[in-house]
Amino acid sequence: MDNNPEKWRTQAWAHLTKLRQESPLIQCITNFVSMDIMANVLLSAGASPAMIHSIDEIPEFTPKAHALCINVGTLTTDWLPAMKVAAETANKEGKPWVLDPVAAGATGFRLKACLELLGLKPCVVRGNGSEILALFKGSVDPTSKGVDSSHESTDVVEAAKSLAQLSGSVIAVSGAVDIITDGHRVVGVQNGVAMLQKITATGCSVTALIAAFIAIDPLHVIEATSSALSLFGVAAEIGMQMSNGPASLRTHLMDSLYGLDEGTVLNRVNITNL
Amino acid sequence: MDNNPEKWRTQAWAHLTKLRQESPLIQCITNFVSMDIMANVLLSAGASPAMIHSIDEIPEFTPKAHALCINVGTLTTDWLPAMKVAAETANKEGKPWVLDPVAAGATGFRLKACLELLGLKPCVVRGNGSEILALFKGSVDPTSKGVDSSHESTDVVEAAKSLAQLSGSVIAVSGAVDIITDGHRVVGVQNGVAMLQKITATGCSVTALIAAFIAIDPLHVIEATSSALSLFGVAAEIGMQMSNGPASLRTHLMDSLYGLDEGTVLNRVNITNL
Amino acid sequence: MDNNPEKWRTQAWAHLTKLRQESPLIQCITNFVSMDIMANVLLSAGASPAMIHSIDEIPEFTPKAHALCINVGTLTTDWLPAMKVAAETANKEGKPWVLDPVAAGATGFRLKACLELLGLKPCVVRGNGSEILALFKGSVDPTSKGVDSSHESTDVVEAAKSLAQLSGSVIAVSGAVDIITDGHRVVGVQNGVAMLQKITATGCSVTALIAAFIAIDPLHVIEATSSALSLFGVAAEIGMQMSNGPASLRTHLMDSLYGLDEGTVLNRVNITNL
Repeated sequence: MDNNPEKWRTQAWAHLTKLRQESPLIQCITNFVSMDIMANVLLSAGASPAMIHSIDEIPEFTPKAHALCINVGTLTTDWLPAMKVAAETANKEGKPWVLDPVAAGATGFRLKACLELLGLKPCVVRGNGSEILALFKGSVDPTSKGVDSSHESTDVVEAAKSLAQLSGSVIAVSGAVDIITDGHRVVGVQNGVAMLQKITATGCSVTALIAAFIAIDPLHVIEATSSALSLFGVAAEIGMQMSNGPASLRTHLMDSLYGLDEGTVLNRVNITNL
Repeated sequence: MDNNPEKWRTQAWAHLTKLRQESPLIQCITNFVSMDIMANVLLSAGASPAMIHSIDEIPEFTPKAHALCINVGTLTTDWLPAMKVAAETANKEGKPWVLDPVAAGATGFRLKACLELLGLKPCVVRGNGSEILALFKGSVDPTSKGVDSSHESTDVVEAAKSLAQLSGSVIAVSGAVDIITDGHRVVGVQNGVAMLQKITATGCSVTALIAAFIAIDPLHVIEATSSALSLFGVAAEIGMQMSNGPASLRTHLMDSLYGLDEGTVLNRVNITNL
Repeated sequence: MDNNPEKWRTQAWAHLTKLRQESPLIQCITNFVSMDIMANVLLSAGASPAMIHSIDEIPEFTPKAHALCINVGTLTTDWLPAMKVAAETANKEGKPWVLDPVAAGATGFRLKACLELLGLKPCVVRGNGSEILALFKGSVDPTSKGVDSSHESTDVVEAAKSLAQLSGSVIAVSGAVDIITDGHRVVGVQNGVAMLQKITATGCSVTALIAAFIAIDPLHVIEATSSALSLFGVAAEIGMQMSNGPASLRTHLMDSLYGLDEGTVLNRVNITNL
């Protein structure tokens, strides 16, 4: 796709329309903090969430899902095997899955788990700059203990590109401008509001939304990921106009995501090739 | 009770009034996704929730509760023994308990667990049509792997009646018209709004509400169950008038449940013998 | 500090200003019901929450946190070792930690766990009157099975003072008037609204907020605890003016906490030496 903003906008609307029509089943193995908002974001967008994480039913259930979201936010050792079996099952069945490496650089335990999951070839990895840097450094240096949360954004783009090439996954980096790259192309999304950072698990939720968009357009991963990030941001922008703080933003964001119409999408989606 | 709508309405108001006065303690062993909204729905209605699931304290705690709600939404093998001990303790103590067989037909693991819990004789089982059909088919055919989510509603009523007769439990089926049956009588509830399906765990929450209503009228299980389903639906109807989408509906539903007054209840409760 | 209301008010504003500037990292090992609201309350106040409870990463992560909150609401045996290691790590690193002994008197299992945690010398323990009484009775009488929820408030103040002297922790008792004591001084906070009791996990959330305030003023534990309790109550008072019930109060409370300004704080904070 060339750098025609109109094409990105009509594509985002087409993605949302298809998502609402097909209501794909999205299995989420995610942290406890995010479960409520993630399920509700998926429902508001038109998808069908299934928060199922038991290793005893994953081999039977995951093949029924249209995409899978794995998030390590409240990881403990007993959850990791289920995550791996789910990822492997999704791969075997040709179902896309996405990884959210929450706080990947916070501890060695967490970094190791994220790198193991990364080795199972997620379709997309979405994190903030620190998380993506931690994964990149961990990938190239086994002695890495993760990174500080401070970093330069330029570094992050290069790290994301390199990590995409190393891993074969599309890497999405959330920030003032979201970056999506497969190691060659780089796409930027400029939607959203700063106050999203004051609501817990909005990042987790947008990762699940990426899974839903990939489920309905699995052959265009960068495009589907960009649409998901942009439309979540657009819903936040609309919601922000009615909000007095982070809690009302949470409510209005989800209402707005549910009600997004063609005119709003075509006016506000802001995606460009970088 | 004959088919006098007024009697159902005054009875629902009497139930709610008693619930608010007695504030029964409702123990919930439920899925992670539902815990926040379930506790808040119980509080809004006037009950006292207790989210306690450790097998180490169930034998001492469950006898103090006035009713018990068991929900298998995020079931893993390590939770099942606690659920069984809690159900058995409730039975021994003469405390009513209700079962929510979330996604009973999704996997063999889940269906088996639900059937084992059903064997412990819940006072009420509440599910959607697919879940109740899965339980019914699993009850009569050990080789059943559950069912598709598509089904005809007529079948569901017959399956619910048969399941009630087989199990001895009152069966409540959520839908455009909620069905409540003990295998002989069939009661229909026509309250609620379609958008409830866009809010995660509203079904789970109404199951907990049924537990609360049975706690304060244990000798009239069908009536208490019908009141719970109807009043939750009425709160949703009132809330819907102020809502712009599922997230604001969630807020207004709970506010409305908290504030339900006699006039609204007498005007809106819609329960009939079928 | 003498009993000058103005000093308490300017101190509360100074605490909040510092919290917003420094954004301390608060590790929460808490019950499933509270995770969402607790993280959002911390974010709204200006802190950075981290819901990390795996024993495999606590030795590495807890030293990075500025304070720790431990809450036993949905305790099971497998969580207790992680709580203890986290508390011990915090102590070793000189990081303050707070304990929320949810339903301490409900079962022997729970009381024993709370007393073991109390033995690890939390900086502050916050509970309601029943919980504090249960801890006090359990501390002086090993055969205590906890207490009934009914109690006289006078008894609670004396029990809190005695428990503070026995344990070395500051004890905070939530109620119509919140009581904070180190066993010698007694401070009272009169902010908040009764409807907070209709929202699950508001008590849990204010305990986490205490951790955040101690993180930025660790040498003045009584003062920081009083500021946290008062400002959460002020946010509830402001939020209550816009609310129609408990669900909208939850939203407006968090928005108000996020937006608290100097004038409001100086007008409303109500803290006195008792």
